[in-house]
Amino acid sequence: MGTSRKRVTKLRPIEDRGRIYIENVTPAVDAGRYRTKAQVGVALPVAADVLRDGHDLLRAVVRFAPRKARKWGEAELTYDALGDRWHGAFAATAVGLWKYEVEAWTDRFGTWRRDLEKRAAAHQDLDVELEVGAELIEARAKKATKTTRAVLATALKNIRAKKHTGEGPTDSRVQAALDDALLAAMRALDPRTDSVTSPTLELTVDRKLGVVGAWYEFFPRSTGERAGEHGTFRTAIERLPHIASMGFDVIYLPPIHPIGTAHRKGKNNTLIADKHDVGSPWAIGSKAGGHTAVHPDLGTLADFDAFVRAANGENLEVALDFAVQCAPDHPWVKQHPDWFQHRPDGSIRYAENPPKKYQDIYPIDFDTKDKQGLWNALRDVLAFWVSHGVKVFRVDNPHTKSFAFWEWAIDSLKADNPELVFLAEAFTRPKVMATLAKLGFTQSYTYFTWKNTRWELEAYLRELVGEHANYFRPNFFANTPDILHEYLQTGGAAAFRIRLALAATLSPTYGIYSGYEFYENVPLREGSEEYLDSEKYQLRQRPLDAKGSLVPMIRTLNETRRAHPCLESLTNLVFHHADKDAILTYSKRTGDDCVLVVANLNPHSVEEATVHVDLSALGVSPSRPYQVRDVLSNDAHLWQGGANYVRLSPEHPVHVFHVTQS
Amino acid sequence: MGTSRKRVTKLRPIEDRGRIYIENVTPAVDAGRYRTKAQVGVALPVAADVLRDGHDLLRAVVRFAPRKARKWGEAELTYDALGDRWHGAFAATAVGLWKYEVEAWTDRFGTWRRDLEKRAAAHQDLDVELEVGAELIEARAKKATKTTRAVLATALKNIRAKKHTGEGPTDSRVQAALDDALLAAMRALDPRTDSVTSPTLELTVDRKLGVVGAWYEFFPRSTGERAGEHGTFRTAIERLPHIASMGFDVIYLPPIHPIGTAHRKGKNNTLIADKHDVGSPWAIGSKAGGHTAVHPDLGTLADFDAFVRAANGENLEVALDFAVQCAPDHPWVKQHPDWFQHRPDGSIRYAENPPKKYQDIYPIDFDTKDKQGLWNALRDVLAFWVSHGVKVFRVDNPHTKSFAFWEWAIDSLKADNPELVFLAEAFTRPKVMATLAKLGFTQSYTYFTWKNTRWELEAYLRELVGEHANYFRPNFFANTPDILHEYLQTGGAAAFRIRLALAATLSPTYGIYSGYEFYENVPLREGSEEYLDSEKYQLRQRPLDAKGSLVPMIRTLNETRRAHPCLESLTNLVFHHADKDAILTYSKRTGDDCVLVVANLNPHSVEEATVHVDLSALGVSPSRPYQVRDVLSNDAHLWQGGANYVRLSPEHPVHVFHVTQS
Repeated sequence: MGTSRKRVTKLRPIEDRGRIYIENVTPAVDAGRYRTKAQVGVALPVAADVLRDGHDLLRAVVRFAPRKARKWGEAELTYDALGDRWHGAFAATAVGLWKYEVEAWTDRFGTWRRDLEKRAAAHQDLDVELEVGAELIEARAKKATKTTRAVLATALKNIRAKKHTGEGPTDSRVQAALDDALLAAMRALDPRTDSVTSPTLELTVDRKLGVVGAWYEFFPRSTGERAGEHGTFRTAIERLPHIASMGFDVIYLPPIHPIGTAHRKGKNNTLIADKHDVGSPWAIGSKAGGHTAVHPDLGTLADFDAFVRAANGENLEVALDFAVQCAPDHPWVKQHPDWFQHRPDGSIRYAENPPKKYQDIYPIDFDTKDKQGLWNALRDVLAFWVSHGVKVFRVDNPHTKSFAFWEWAIDSLKADNPELVFLAEAFTRPKVMATLAKLGFTQSYTYFTWKNTRWELEAYLRELVGEHANYFRPNFFANTPDILHEYLQTGGAAAFRIRLALAATLSPTYGIYSGYEFYENVPLREGSEEYLDSEKYQLRQRPLDAKGSLVPMIRTLNETRRAHPCLESLTNLVFHHADKDAILTYSKRTGDDCVLVVANLNPHSVEEATVHVDLSALGVSPSRPYQVRDVLSNDAHLWQGGANYVRLSPEHPVHVFHVTQS
Repeated sequence: MGTSRKRVTKLRPIEDRGRIYIENVTPAVDAGRYRTKAQVGVALPVAADVLRDGHDLLRAVVRFAPRKARKWGEAELTYDALGDRWHGAFAATAVGLWKYEVEAWTDRFGTWRRDLEKRAAAHQDLDVELEVGAELIEARAKKATKTTRAVLATALKNIRAKKHTGEGPTDSRVQAALDDALLAAMRALDPRTDSVTSPTLELTVDRKLGVVGAWYEFFPRSTGERAGEHGTFRTAIERLPHIASMGFDVIYLPPIHPIGTAHRKGKNNTLIADKHDVGSPWAIGSKAGGHTAVHPDLGTLADFDAFVRAANGENLEVALDFAVQCAPDHPWVKQHPDWFQHRPDGSIRYAENPPKKYQDIYPIDFDTKDKQGLWNALRDVLAFWVSHGVKVFRVDNPHTKSFAFWEWAIDSLKADNPELVFLAEAFTRPKVMATLAKLGFTQSYTYFTWKNTRWELEAYLRELVGEHANYFRPNFFANTPDILHEYLQTGGAAAFRIRLALAATLSPTYGIYSGYEFYENVPLREGSEEYLDSEKYQLRQRPLDAKGSLVPMIRTLNETRRAHPCLESLTNLVFHHADKDAILTYSKRTGDDCVLVVANLNPHSVEEATVHVDLSALGVSPSRPYQVRDVLSNDAHLWQGGANYVRLSPEHPVHVFHVTQS
């Protein structure tokens, strides 16, 4: 057998991680690869595993600051023995990028104090142990403030007293050592000598509109005064007071740029347009300009500026559409041929999903050798509109463009304009939608339109309120120019009422595309989700209002959203049981504010059911009655206990109850 | 309104992550903060999310190599559309540290091929598209090998043929383009131009004994020939053939070092020892030496070396105990007073868990200023025993010593001796036990001893086979010198049979402490898990064998473990239903090899039940009978279908069935 090899290995700092291990800090997106999202002024719960060898007590805080700040704030974490986990929270006070981390250290004084209490209870000899504590106090006293110094001095005198009264726990020296003021002073003066800090995580702090908002999508070109007359920004301005009066926050416009003429689509997406056809706004670019130009028929850039000002005057923000694609007559096609893919015969490759062809659109080649030129140009398109007062962008099909571009462009723009909001319009595989949200999109379109049964809605919402919610914010559009769901096609007015109420109360951000308020429900053909005579290819003048429209209900729901803070949160959603499958029941509660929604998902008939609400989720005591007042009908009922009867008809298919208990 | 700000932002490499995003690579422990564990030669399943914008096809591989190697191996990952995830596996071919990562790139040829097929099916004009493919082939042909060059040349000629036969899919050019040999050649030559690689993860590859083994714990000092005579390594050598004949792999010895005399504990842990008392081996150190010395009563270091040689000759490995603590007369106490904590009165702080006191032991102060000296010395203790042929260490209470020390020491030792095995003896909070496993311990004691009902066992095992299994390897000891569970105290011989069979078949690594084979079950007092007349404080001579002992059953179980590879895996465990709570049913299957265990957990009476086995888990066809042969009784039965009758008595409480179907 050999003999032991002696060697002295120097400890490198990285090898001595200290005695405390901080693990599984939440929220964290992919362990910190991506940023967590938060809303300014809203508390973000933070938790961590904090582990140390032995039995010493620990203390932990979450530290937080704007990303470039040197001075950190901190909030204490408290230990939950059941889950062996530390919990706390902090609220960012400004929009922009923030950082946060967990710091923990051994609570030497607290440990000594706990042990002293046990030793005293066991009537052990305490002379030496009291001196251990006295030395700890003495050491911290050097850095004490005026007030704490007095507390420490008194404690020291009493702990070191030669004469003491009592025995064991009643020993006057022990009493002095266990004094609460001493504990507070010692905690404040803790030098955190063995402090360990978790990796630093990053946080995107968005303004409220990034999280909470009601969106209204509309085509300015349809605001012409007479049928067939192309609307302008000037005619569109006249619609703004009406839209504002419905309580919307965002008015979203499809692309406002010149529309290509080559291969222009005709009405109902036909391949050949006649000379009066206005074309699809998503076929961007013509001789009149590209992504930074305004369609001449809509007016001038100055008209657009006026539209933005008018909207802002009505407390509406303007959201623009950003579609990275070019009509064959877009100026870039000649200026930057290298931004497009060429085929061996010299032709530019148009958009395809074989065997489907989209000859009116050229996709951008993100593999271009001029990547820097392209990325800058695209980013500058957005910067251009930001300089014209636009702070909200709805991005068309981001999942068919380079993910890395989005990550770079959104970062780059939000560095100067942290108030920007980017909505991802990607209807694709869930993991791709999640990744777009992770890499920077503020909020995302969802599968909401296709979730119409109770089971579908409950399952989908459970997914959205899980870990997803750390970075993925849903925007529940009830319809879009591309999606007229069969449920709306066949469910009559009741279907529109139901879906509107669900969208407005399930998600902090929701929207409708104009025409919804008039129950527009005729599909291009059976089995299609496209509208007949779709506004994507032609003008669709609509009256300002019409009898029996959904306008009053929209107004009430948007007022309710403003009156009830509980509707501004997603993760406070709780589902309740009803004894009929057609009845969906859920509540949201924040502090004292609670809304309970009971919806009959069957648009064709009356449903009666007993709903079984979880009273603790409502914050209601089971021993007293509580009031549920329907904000839609203004009817109020006194309920008691969990089981209650409801009856919902197609005319009044949804209760949106404000829950109170006196 | 302002005008657009023009600026050219240079793209830094970090901002262009490429078009492919690789996420959620598994296995990964805390996103790569800790190493995954694997067994040499055993396939490790790897999976990842691989995401790219658009609709192009992707390819992905897992790359792997010893940590310092420059040349990587790789294995293809395949796409599972259901989970939108890529799967593959690799097996490390040597022990030590390895690295692995996932690489993915756009499958340009595969994408072109897929699209061509669709275009052909739609009878589109293919001339230009065929040329696109031809150019792709031409580009790769430059790097072709002799064989692939011929394949490419033929394909090129046929794809570019002016004359072609057929139409659409039957077009001879299309046929040439879709040729399988061409596909294989193009895949092999793929230049992976837009390849992206995940962060590199690390893997600890252990030898088989780190994963699979049967352990036998015994005190050499109890092998004296006559009652009261202190055994030696020489007398212990005589026991080795018997222990080997039971089929064990590891013989684990409690500390073999000189035992302190100051405050030595007497029999049954009494505070005062008489002069004949041998003391606890965990009170390490006396004038005769410390952690690198051998207790004089056991013999010399040369005797120990002889013991190791003799054990190895019987195919047994010797495991030593590593307990970081010192008796008051340990040489370090005088040599390194700064390694211990001193109280204000100058005394050294002995071990305590207030109000409990352990005056016979001084704990090490890991906050010593001589941290480097201490860490080196402790590491060198282990290195000393490694140099004496010890490759397996059972570490006593690692959770009361600095975690960072273990991380450093295990790394440091395994760098030179990757075959080392460290077993953590920590019975504490689950997160602490998990962290010890993460930071380097090869395997861990568990809560198995306290899980005795079907519900407890099923729930605990489900936890162990989850994500835990990437780094936490259980060692199921049926008893230890500290743990004689009430189940064994009161369940008679049946309890010993049941727990032995469960330990040996549930976990790839298990063990017993000697005396188990003789059903030793008398506690110190009622309610205690300590043994009466515990061997920790006195000698306990035992016969080599005795009639009716468990020795034959132990031998059969260890033979069965060797004969059935399915018992070498933990994560292949499947529980089956039985219609009686006392009946625990589970199977393990690896390839064709399948073992099914049916255990009556009630040691007091006969239980009859119908077990409902999941035939697909057994790899058995439901349409034919299958044979179950009990390796313990050698009885065989023909079963058909899932539901089968069992009857298990206290005399034969467990079936360990080998399942076959002809």
